[in-house]
Amino acid sequence: MEKIKCVISYDGSGFAGFQIQPKKRTVQGELEKALMTIHKGAHVRIQASGRTDTGVHAKGQTIHFETPFTIPEANWKRALNTLLPGDLYINEVEKVPSSFHARYDVIEKEYRYYVWNEKETDVFKRNYAYQFPYALDIKAIQDACSYLEGEHDFTTFSSAKATTRGSKVRTLYQASCEKRGSEIEFIFRGSGFLYNMVRITVGVLLDIGQGRRRAGEIPYLIEQKDRRLVGETIPPQGLYLWRVRY
Amino acid sequence: MEKIKCVISYDGSGFAGFQIQPKKRTVQGELEKALMTIHKGAHVRIQASGRTDTGVHAKGQTIHFETPFTIPEANWKRALNTLLPGDLYINEVEKVPSSFHARYDVIEKEYRYYVWNEKETDVFKRNYAYQFPYALDIKAIQDACSYLEGEHDFTTFSSAKATTRGSKVRTLYQASCEKRGSEIEFIFRGSGFLYNMVRITVGVLLDIGQGRRRAGEIPYLIEQKDRRLVGETIPPQGLYLWRVRY
Repeated sequence: MEKIKCVISYDGSGFAGFQIQPKKRTVQGELEKALMTIHKGAHVRIQASGRTDTGVHAKGQTIHFETPFTIPEANWKRALNTLLPGDLYINEVEKVPSSFHARYDVIEKEYRYYVWNEKETDVFKRNYAYQFPYALDIKAIQDACSYLEGEHDFTTFSSAKATTRGSKVRTLYQASCEKRGSEIEFIFRGSGFLYNMVRITVGVLLDIGQGRRRAGEIPYLIEQKDRRLVGETIPPQGLYLWRVRY
Repeated sequence: MEKIKCVISYDGSGFAGFQIQPKKRTVQGELEKALMTIHKGAHVRIQASGRTDTGVHAKGQTIHFETPFTIPEANWKRALNTLLPGDLYINEVEKVPSSFHARYDVIEKEYRYYVWNEKETDVFKRNYAYQFPYALDIKAIQDACSYLEGEHDFTTFSSAKATTRGSKVRTLYQASCEKRGSEIEFIFRGSGFLYNMVRITVGVLLDIGQGRRRAGEIPYLIEQKDRRLVGETIPPQGLYLWRVRY
């Protein structure tokens, strides 16, 4: 058997998330359907770096699968992209040692979140950014970001429904925010992310940008380990799984 | 009766074009449905600056309609946007004299066409630009653009199926091409456009950029008035009706 790693991108708008579900169009479902065609009806299970929710996009999601076939990497890429729908694309294919695992071997993930900071709706952004019409103090958000960086227990900033077992301590190597025109880009790089962590965190950062909270409250919020202290999870369409490092 | 002019934008990906058709989702159909709700079931016919085909986008399409209601402009905008789907948005509402007509009073239209000049597919561009993987000589395209500007008979550059009666003479005030990174932007401003004129013209310009034709052939092609001399109409998803001037 050969083990194949793929870096993939998808427009999350048309998918009911990554994970396969009966009667739903999912990224895993489309990938396994294409692999089944190549494997003449045999089911090939894929493993991803992690799931993404309905509407969440990926520029560099990473998966692996095992195959009895010996096919050059470029041919794998061509064959899969020929079979896959237009909103799902294989960027890179690489043969990896049998010890490789797309989820267990992650050393860093990068997520980005895009906010369209305008009162007027842009129909071309509705599925690709979160429209937020209120004025924001970017400096205050940047100050708050610096409190988020480092090793912390992110319980406050993750879904209370999370099924994560064990520690909710994660390390954020980067939490940053830049405004370019009407677009605000949030970048998070970390050792791992809890369920809904980026969408909850950006929600808190937008509260801070609006002056509804102070940047200096972040250490207190982290300390409390209480999801109920912060606001709602903001929408999925601004979120992109940008890169996974091994 | 009051006459209302609206500047509208739409993501053409989910529409079977502008013009109303039975059992198809069209821009006109969605607009007239919203107006019917506001008018308590009475049908209100809209007039546009012109139609757009399936998959073609608009940043500044312009329409008008007549109404017995006296509603402030801002309220029209809010009421319509509340009723319309997310891929169709009213940018501006203006009360206009009863003599105004969205099609007959056009003095200038601007179309843009976006080419994504990369070998690798970008899933986020598939509905919003035409992916063209071959190297292009932008200078040659710009030279060709300068031959297109001015008053010409554009028969060669319009659909042979066109139902346009009378003259195919139009004036192009601007035909230009700029490359920024992997994105190539074509801008056309003119007194009017024939059916498929932008998509056929950009197809010829891409031939020139590839070296399959010379820029200096443009005057000859115009002179021949023969659609069969040039290549196929390129795809709709790169095309945007950008602005209409009155």
